[in-house]
Amino acid sequence: MKKNYRMVIAYDGTRYKGWQSQKNAENTIQGKLNSIFTKLEGNEVEVQGSGRTDAGVHAAGQVANVRLSVEMPAWEIKDYVNHYLPEDIGVMQMKEVSDRFHARLSAVKKTYCYRIFNSSDPNVFERKWMYAIAEPLDVEAMCQGASCLQGVHDFAAFCRKPSKKKSTVRDISSIEVVRKEKEVDIIITGNGFLHNMVRIIAGTLTEVGLGKYEPLRVRQILESKDRKYAGEMLPAKGLILQSVEY
Amino acid sequence: MKKNYRMVIAYDGTRYKGWQSQKNAENTIQGKLNSIFTKLEGNEVEVQGSGRTDAGVHAAGQVANVRLSVEMPAWEIKDYVNHYLPEDIGVMQMKEVSDRFHARLSAVKKTYCYRIFNSSDPNVFERKWMYAIAEPLDVEAMCQGASCLQGVHDFAAFCRKPSKKKSTVRDISSIEVVRKEKEVDIIITGNGFLHNMVRIIAGTLTEVGLGKYEPLRVRQILESKDRKYAGEMLPAKGLILQSVEY
Repeated sequence: MKKNYRMVIAYDGTRYKGWQSQKNAENTIQGKLNSIFTKLEGNEVEVQGSGRTDAGVHAAGQVANVRLSVEMPAWEIKDYVNHYLPEDIGVMQMKEVSDRFHARLSAVKKTYCYRIFNSSDPNVFERKWMYAIAEPLDVEAMCQGASCLQGVHDFAAFCRKPSKKKSTVRDISSIEVVRKEKEVDIIITGNGFLHNMVRIIAGTLTEVGLGKYEPLRVRQILESKDRKYAGEMLPAKGLILQSVEY
Repeated sequence: MKKNYRMVIAYDGTRYKGWQSQKNAENTIQGKLNSIFTKLEGNEVEVQGSGRTDAGVHAAGQVANVRLSVEMPAWEIKDYVNHYLPEDIGVMQMKEVSDRFHARLSAVKKTYCYRIFNSSDPNVFERKWMYAIAEPLDVEAMCQGASCLQGVHDFAAFCRKPSKKKSTVRDISSIEVVRKEKEVDIIITGNGFLHNMVRIIAGTLTEVGLGKYEPLRVRQILESKDRKYAGEMLPAKGLILQSVEY
């Protein structure tokens, strides 16, 4: 009889090809976890994440579940897995949950943060987890632009390659732009995200912050439903999956 | 006519053999700076730091001075140097100062912080700048032990190889042990530090925090003036030079 375990995972995505395990690609976070759980279980095991994160994207609170028949308390499974994981991936929580829990299908909301180091100074200690923009960003204008995106909208303009068959409508329940000294964070919570959506939104709001776009142009871009009007996608290194709600 | 410049330098010491340039050792922070300033100046230039930091030790506020004849405003020299420095070293401030300023001889106080990650959880994002101790530390006992070290004392017991010719008396004006969630910091300010002194003090206070030494044993160790009674030296990666006062 297998038990279902829910875990919270943190990772420094710098040297990985993203969450999702791939054939012939060793370096994925899911791949690392799968092989450790498979070793523990003695049979092929697949960890189910709340969703993919792209190559180079980080997580403080990715959530996954895994079904195991091994007889061990959850804290011991956690210690076992952390013992074999590389230093840049860590299981922060592990607990037994109802069999119905599915990390992807049961997810209600996710929060991502895009971190910008907004200074021409060097960023010695956080250089791997923030994208640097030297010119000062107008955070008030960015907030105005961001507010156009809150709510239920068709986000096709902020998607890398929108599928014609799948809906590009998402519900963004909250989007904030916050300055903390030299750091500007774009924090977005929604019921789901299209491919590269947060990084394209961050790039578009950056254009607003630099004065290249008027804040209200964000609404026009949204309404165009056309990727070509949005700003450039910002690099993966500034993006972190903060948390997943159930 | 040379001008004297004072700079504040931050570095992630992980991949360096310490501050001090060495013959046949490429990877030192001073060595990197010397070679960039020498290129800028067209003549051999040596940067003078407030003091050495050992291999693997970090700095948020190392201070150094350099004498240059090049005609450039300080901010432009700063940008030039940062352009050529690797990402894990950065000049945070640069300004012209009186010719009498000498980063080592003029220094009045230095503050070091030893950072302990006090949890059995993984420390994914700060693993390179904190030393992990899984067993819970008794911070109150550590504070009691630390208070024995405040003031003017002979710190021979906390020095790797005390010289018989040079004084091992130092004035520790402040020593604090502070918990912030999973982090325990030992913050020490003094007029000077013996070789490995902060790391040996941190190791001794850790024994107190683990209940292996009584807090008052720190006073006995101090009075013994004998290295063999103090705790083990903790690893370099947890140590950071926070600031230098003039």
